Amino acid sequence: MYTLGIDYGTNSVRALVVRCADGAELGTGIVNYPSGTQGVLLDPKDHHLARQNPADYLLGLEKSVKTALAQARKVKDFDARQVAGIGVDTTGSSPIPVDATNTPLALQKKWTRNLAAHCWLWKDHTSHREAAEITALAAKIRPHFIARCGNTYSSEWFWAKILHCRRTAPTVFKAAYSWVELADWIPSVLAGVKDPRAIKRGVCCAGHKALYADDWGGLPDKEFLTQLDPALADLRDRLYEKAHDATVSAGALSAEWAKKLGLPAGIPIAIGEMDVHYGAIGSGVAEGTLVKVIGTSTCDCGVVSADKQVPEIPGICGIVKGSILPGYHGLEAGQSAVGDIFKWFVEGVLGDAKLHATLTREAAKLKPGQSGLLALDWNNGNRTILVDQLLTGLTLGATLYTTRAELYRALIEATAFGARVIIERFKEYGVPIHRVVCAGGIAEKNPLLMQIYADVTGCTMLVAGSSQACALGSAVSAAVLAGAHPDFATAQKKMTRLKKVAYKPKAANRKIYDQLFALYRQLHDSFGGVNKSADLSRVMKDLLAIKAAQA
Amino acid sequence: MYTLGIDYGTNSVRALVVRCADGAELGTGIVNYPSGTQGVLLDPKDHHLARQNPADYLLGLEKSVKTALAQARKVKDFDARQVAGIGVDTTGSSPIPVDATNTPLALQKKWTRNLAAHCWLWKDHTSHREAAEITALAAKIRPHFIARCGNTYSSEWFWAKILHCRRTAPTVFKAAYSWVELADWIPSVLAGVKDPRAIKRGVCCAGHKALYADDWGGLPDKEFLTQLDPALADLRDRLYEKAHDATVSAGALSAEWAKKLGLPAGIPIAIGEMDVHYGAIGSGVAEGTLVKVIGTSTCDCGVVSADKQVPEIPGICGIVKGSILPGYHGLEAGQSAVGDIFKWFVEGVLGDAKLHATLTREAAKLKPGQSGLLALDWNNGNRTILVDQLLTGLTLGATLYTTRAELYRALIEATAFGARVIIERFKEYGVPIHRVVCAGGIAEKNPLLMQIYADVTGCTMLVAGSSQACALGSAVSAAVLAGAHPDFATAQKKMTRLKKVAYKPKAANRKIYDQLFALYRQLHDSFGGVNKSADLSRVMKDLLAIKAAQA
Repeated sequence: MYTLGIDYGTNSVRALVVRCADGAELGTGIVNYPSGTQGVLLDPKDHHLARQNPADYLLGLEKSVKTALAQARKVKDFDARQVAGIGVDTTGSSPIPVDATNTPLALQKKWTRNLAAHCWLWKDHTSHREAAEITALAAKIRPHFIARCGNTYSSEWFWAKILHCRRTAPTVFKAAYSWVELADWIPSVLAGVKDPRAIKRGVCCAGHKALYADDWGGLPDKEFLTQLDPALADLRDRLYEKAHDATVSAGALSAEWAKKLGLPAGIPIAIGEMDVHYGAIGSGVAEGTLVKVIGTSTCDCGVVSADKQVPEIPGICGIVKGSILPGYHGLEAGQSAVGDIFKWFVEGVLGDAKLHATLTREAAKLKPGQSGLLALDWNNGNRTILVDQLLTGLTLGATLYTTRAELYRALIEATAFGARVIIERFKEYGVPIHRVVCAGGIAEKNPLLMQIYADVTGCTMLVAGSSQACALGSAVSAAVLAGAHPDFATAQKKMTRLKKVAYKPKAANRKIYDQLFALYRQLHDSFGGVNKSADLSRVMKDLLAIKAAQA
Repeated sequence: MYTLGIDYGTNSVRALVVRCADGAELGTGIVNYPSGTQGVLLDPKDHHLARQNPADYLLGLEKSVKTALAQARKVKDFDARQVAGIGVDTTGSSPIPVDATNTPLALQKKWTRNLAAHCWLWKDHTSHREAAEITALAAKIRPHFIARCGNTYSSEWFWAKILHCRRTAPTVFKAAYSWVELADWIPSVLAGVKDPRAIKRGVCCAGHKALYADDWGGLPDKEFLTQLDPALADLRDRLYEKAHDATVSAGALSAEWAKKLGLPAGIPIAIGEMDVHYGAIGSGVAEGTLVKVIGTSTCDCGVVSADKQVPEIPGICGIVKGSILPGYHGLEAGQSAVGDIFKWFVEGVLGDAKLHATLTREAAKLKPGQSGLLALDWNNGNRTILVDQLLTGLTLGATLYTTRAELYRALIEATAFGARVIIERFKEYGVPIHRVVCAGGIAEKNPLLMQIYADVTGCTMLVAGSSQACALGSAVSAAVLAGAHPDFATAQKKMTRLKKVAYKPKAANRKIYDQLFALYRQLHDSFGGVNKSADLSRVMKDLLAIKAAQA
């Protein structure tokens, strides 16, 4: 028996054929989105804007699945008729305005040139004013709405984006019958759902991005939405009443898509989850194990048994019952930019993508603290624990002799300090973290970064066995749904693994990084507004003293 | 009648033949120091170290003067026999250990490979601990010693360097009969002085760098020096009792050097001054006119009539009666790195010196505040007004879209903010500044920087007429000494001029820069230790707001 995992990333979609018995990956198909800049529609006048063309999703779906199946067919014994289910994960919150037939407006000639009619990609930050407004209103009349998402509603999320559309592109808003998260839309397409109200929505996006919770009756109440804009309250009726965890199916594969893809019609389609959530499952997330998906940005996922009470943790993006793994509270934190920061420095500033390898080699020769540099990893704002998009990057400690390799390493260290802040916050509020499993290209390809993360956080860094952890997690979910395994824990045990490498913290490095982290926290708290009467007069001197001691 | 100005810079020496009647420059000779890295002896293990080979000075002296004279001979009417005096300026504080015959130790075979036996170049910062010790001792028992140099003795200065030599290279210290500033040593060589005690020392170096003042009996008293190290008290007897302003001659040209250079023996040699001081004279310094010499670092020179009382100005590097211009208090401030910061970024980080022109062109297209960036110009510490070498660079506000041209402009702006801090400090303490005249390569070649300086400071930026202002100022001093003009004011009027260009502040830009400067002061005061309970929570947000308003 096989299942298919389909993973919609920021620049491409990949399909993966997995054998349920042992998690063997038999075939992969990857399709880069053809539109925009590396698949992202940009506005040269507003760097906050990031949209995506839904046509790319459909094109990528067919092509990637066919490629994956073609590859799998080369493996003896594989038969596409034995594909028993499909799981889908996508970026999020990436809502799409659709008409009453569940067709994205952007696919209609009239709207195709209007950026507001396309998918509002997760990293679109045009809605920061609306996010602040939602935060302020909730703080005033519905504090419990935001208590589980760090007391701050993000500009990356569902309601902020829709409210921004209502304000800045009212014709698009008016034409939209409903809005669907990409993670829900792809399963609905595969299942042939033609009415947005009939889409089975996942609790991942609903709970983490749309203020959905069973205990307050689903989506935010109409009174709350009315105070933002009465049009949002009207929209609520055309969204959904109930969101589901991964025990529920999103539907069965329609005849149309079965034919298109060469798969059996009627096989179950798993509830869509966000890429990192299924990625966490594909990386072996469990109580006590934090999964870090390290890519352009980072997402940290943990779970705590649904039987236990989870306190509200200030600054943690989301705590949602049933998200990630059924039967658990899903906890999500993250850093708004990690790989993107290195990419910016090497490609944007130094202007030469080929330098990544050279700089990594040179940076690896440096000792912790030797550069005298300290940086903040806020080039794209701070998602956890400050939850503030209006923060920016900072590099401190440069002399006339500072090298590009030192700056590069300082940026890696900055992201490691950011990672430590998150881990400390979890532990502070009683969420146990015994193991850290990292997934994503950076985790696999950058031993320097992984060792720095181990040295900075004091945790052993493990690496997920699959380099396609998100797609694998989707396939795991489909496998459970198809009955290949009795539950997620069994399916994870059979279908996922770790790589052999383990990055263990080195005591000597930890000691230096503890000192540097204390200085990082000073900058973090001061510029982040936690400490409004900061004494920073020692920061530069302490860095020079650490540097001198390392020389 | 002609005079010769000889200017010893950080990387090269230049000689200039000047006509006394009108300041016409008839011939120039430039010699790059052959030793070390661009003339500087470095220690790869200690970037604080910067020394210079005295042999380069002698070689450069002969070669540059001969070249300048050869060029002048091509001008009709010029006759080397009509050269009536020589003026010399050099970097400082750049002390040289010499033996009892006034020969630098480094010129002796035994010592030539010992870096401590060479000239301790102005920008050598190995002595920061000793500087702190001198500051602390003076604060305790002789507060008046440092009250005129910003209450802080610098690691760049005479006593700190000698004390560091005593501690770290005791054999060199023991072998040194005396120590001579480069500015005093070159005139003494030309005058054939063979006894260090017979050298006429200038009050510029003595007053600004060696705690010399007539009103407390010359150099620091022996009791003070003994507390630092008894060996320094012994050394005092082999230094000097009296230092002189530019009305006094350093001696007459020796037969030996007259022959070597092809000049009349016995012509007067002016007292040596630091490059920027004679540069200020060559740029037309006068009461109310601030001269900024903008190069690798920046030096700001002002004068106030000796009849007036000048208050102690916190953080101003030096206030010395008779320095710069006879009959005036000489005031000196400065920025530890300006051109060096741009050079570091373009050549050290971006790795391509050719980018200076491209980046300047691109940066010129940006509006003030448009980048959202703010930087501190402390890559080489802060000379004025914090007087702290243990400060480092900072860049704040980077996003994932920040360009190299934006970073480049932010660094220029940072140096402009640093310049404004100095001007404001002068004004605050009643030193009038009506005009700013800039000299140096950057002032001539970088209209973008000059306009930014005008916009940031609110002062019209004028440019010195000569691109060899230091050598010209030395020639002016020699001309007064030789009797070509009755006094400095007349000589300056006849021999110096301004370029036609004037950079006037633009009101719209000033408004933005006033906002940015307020944020710069917040960072400056916080990291500089002026404000130890700073609220920096608005800095990043305010920058983003300014950026948004400029978009």
